[in-house]
Amino acid sequence: MPKVTVHRKAHFNAAHQLHRKEWSSSKNFEVFNKCSNPNFHGHNYELIVSLKGEIDKETGYVYDLGKLKRLIKEEIEEAFDHKNLNIEVPEFKELNPTAENISVVIYNRLRVHIPSHLEMEITLYETPRNFVTYSGD
Amino acid sequence: MPKVTVHRKAHFNAAHQLHRKEWSSSKNFEVFNKCSNPNFHGHNYELIVSLKGEIDKETGYVYDLGKLKRLIKEEIEEAFDHKNLNIEVPEFKELNPTAENISVVIYNRLRVHIPSHLEMEITLYETPRNFVTYSGD
Amino acid sequence: MPKVTVHRKAHFNAAHQLHRKEWSSSKNFEVFNKCSNPNFHGHNYELIVSLKGEIDKETGYVYDLGKLKRLIKEEIEEAFDHKNLNIEVPEFKELNPTAENISVVIYNRLRVHIPSHLEMEITLYETPRNFVTYSGD
Amino acid sequence: MPKVTVHRKAHFNAAHQLHRKEWSSSKNFEVFNKCSNPNFHGHNYELIVSLKGEIDKETGYVYDLGKLKRLIKEEIEEAFDHKNLNIEVPEFKELNPTAENISVVIYNRLRVHIPSHLEMEITLYETPRNFVTYSGD
Amino acid sequence: MPKVTVHRKAHFNAAHQLHRKEWSSSKNFEVFNKCSNPNFHGHNYELIVSLKGEIDKETGYVYDLGKLKRLIKEEIEEAFDHKNLNIEVPEFKELNPTAENISVVIYNRLRVHIPSHLEMEITLYETPRNFVTYSGD
Amino acid sequence: MPKVTVHRKAHFNAAHQLHRKEWSSSKNFEVFNKCSNPNFHGHNYELIVSLKGEIDKETGYVYDLGKLKRLIKEEIEEAFDHKNLNIEVPEFKELNPTAENISVVIYNRLRVHIPSHLEMEITLYETPRNFVTYSGD
Repeated sequence: MPKVTVHRKAHFNAAHQLHRKEWSSSKNFEVFNKCSNPNFHGHNYELIVSLKGEIDKETGYVYDLGKLKRLIKEEIEEAFDHKNLNIEVPEFKELNPTAENISVVIYNRLRVHIPSHLEMEITLYETPRNFVTYSGD
Repeated sequence: MPKVTVHRKAHFNAAHQLHRKEWSSSKNFEVFNKCSNPNFHGHNYELIVSLKGEIDKETGYVYDLGKLKRLIKEEIEEAFDHKNLNIEVPEFKELNPTAENISVVIYNRLRVHIPSHLEMEITLYETPRNFVTYSGD
Repeated sequence: MPKVTVHRKAHFNAAHQLHRKEWSSSKNFEVFNKCSNPNFHGHNYELIVSLKGEIDKETGYVYDLGKLKRLIKEEIEEAFDHKNLNIEVPEFKELNPTAENISVVIYNRLRVHIPSHLEMEITLYETPRNFVTYSGD
Repeated sequence: MPKVTVHRKAHFNAAHQLHRKEWSSSKNFEVFNKCSNPNFHGHNYELIVSLKGEIDKETGYVYDLGKLKRLIKEEIEEAFDHKNLNIEVPEFKELNPTAENISVVIYNRLRVHIPSHLEMEITLYETPRNFVTYSGD
Repeated sequence: MPKVTVHRKAHFNAAHQLHRKEWSSSKNFEVFNKCSNPNFHGHNYELIVSLKGEIDKETGYVYDLGKLKRLIKEEIEEAFDHKNLNIEVPEFKELNPTAENISVVIYNRLRVHIPSHLEMEITLYETPRNFVTYSGD
Repeated sequence: MPKVTVHRKAHFNAAHQLHRKEWSSSKNFEVFNKCSNPNFHGHNYELIVSLKGEIDKETGYVYDLGKLKRLIKEEIEEAFDHKNLNIEVPEFKELNPTAENISVVIYNRLRVHIPSHLEMEITLYETPRNFVTYSGD
């Protein structure tokens, strides 16, 4: 059967701050600039989850996008939406919530729920002009 | 010469229904949910056709996008736009018109008109949040 | 208190057909062209509901957009999404489901649930290039 | 000379929290739901500033959009971008930073710099699905 | 019958230069900055034509959007698309092709073809961040 | 460390003309159609620069997107924005400024400033419907 990639778009709104606690405020500002604001700032994150695999002959689906929508809601939106990523998402206790690291965390949270024969890729827009992609490399 | 991918975006509006005639209505509803509505529903499909190959030294083109626009119009838009996919597009007499299957049908319809040294990929948006890609794998 | 307009965007996917049963097929095709296809075609409708009024001093809201989101879901999305407008939405038994008429039907369905001191406007995108606005005039 | 409205789009990313300090946490949650998160959440705000007036015969401009771009940068972006609205923008010390109130604050900050013969309107997107407009009424 | 506004989106790509021949180069640069480049620069203009009037009882249309599409193509796109506005569009021989003036020229070209009982408005995007509206005032 | 691709979006507005000086006007028109207009036409080009590499353990960045933004501004926007590509960008003295060739020129201009362990890809939108990608193949 042909191999197709299916994509589902979702979104969440969150606050964050980029900083490294081993560094001074001035070093943090030098590296992360206004993103290091200790009072936090925030974004409307747009998320695309992509799954590649063979079309199922019976259904014509690679993976039910309604099921993927619910999975993203339960595993990502409920944990990230209207949250402070630094304070309320455990992975970012010790990890800087850059778009790069957030995409890896989302990948890891979803990967365990997705059948292993499907390839997965995460695209995460932090703003309409800054975005990242991660596919488990 | 450098290898570049050129992309052309097009669109068509169509009605469809997801169902499998071997299955009962309730089984169809269980699998395809509201997409199984026997009275049909519809979408504004957004289509991107991508062709990868070497830049022609004389023209600076990989493939004339005006020609690609006309090809998509003749082979896809005229057959799919303002149509009922299940009833009026022959490939879907026996094939469920999921986004996955539609992308394969579009790929196959166009592939025969595109020079074989060019790689081709189809991206099809069923809604702004659900889309698929197929590149002949 | 200042008067502000708040807007909430929603969407639904539906099939429809433009035709007038008093007219012949050829007259219908002459007026409605490919939109008169008796097998139906469809769209991803994008809907914006706008409410204008004074900011409430206590909440800072004109109207709770979460409440408006639920109202649109209950009154419009559940009735229109993944439906055939001609067959399954009673108002269109005798009324042609043009974007113009759909916007008036949506306005009338919502108006009764919105406090009368708020002005209301409906914007409805049938495609990204065709859309309408109606404000009860 | 003809009267035209000119519009300039800008954006800023900020954290905020909706709450009313006279109210208990549970009352705040009841009214503002997840927007009341005391750890803050955030948005990519998209801002449109619109000015209406006669075209200047010499320049063909209603108002120089380069000048408007700089004014928005100095008066709004520098004060709001990558900031925590509740903590770092003085107007929100006592005022809930709902989209409605933010649009009024932006209007008031800009109005004093815009010639009085021009009408002004503010459009503010909090998310792609929630937005407000304010024109000084 | 209810009064509805119908909108049709179109686009054209053109080169232009902002300058006033009575002024020196340095005065032109001072006022129009990089837009005064004598070698021209260009834009993908996005155009929205809006018509407001009563819904026709027989058709459910305010104005046939297919007809409006053809009118925009004949009167605007054929004259402006892939053209140099300063050199090839007669109205700009003596008039600076600012977005403001282009919107007035488009309004005047279309107004004569639109029934007088319909109100008309032009929205013209010069870039995604700069746009204008004109309604004949 | 995981390998992530980071993307930064930028834009510039420019005039151009497609033609080959070895060819007659009629041959140029035959091949490039209205794009061969000797008076030039223009576009709002949207540019995406993508860099793939390992996340830096200390910063959580693959490459500082603020630095990439400044690099694009200095190397591309200042040279291309509000310019006539045929006349004012040296690479196009002898090279047709098709989207394909522009993407290769941008790639080559940026590649020398980007660390060699990062993979780079350029996406260039000439219009919302025509775009190209180049990754150095």
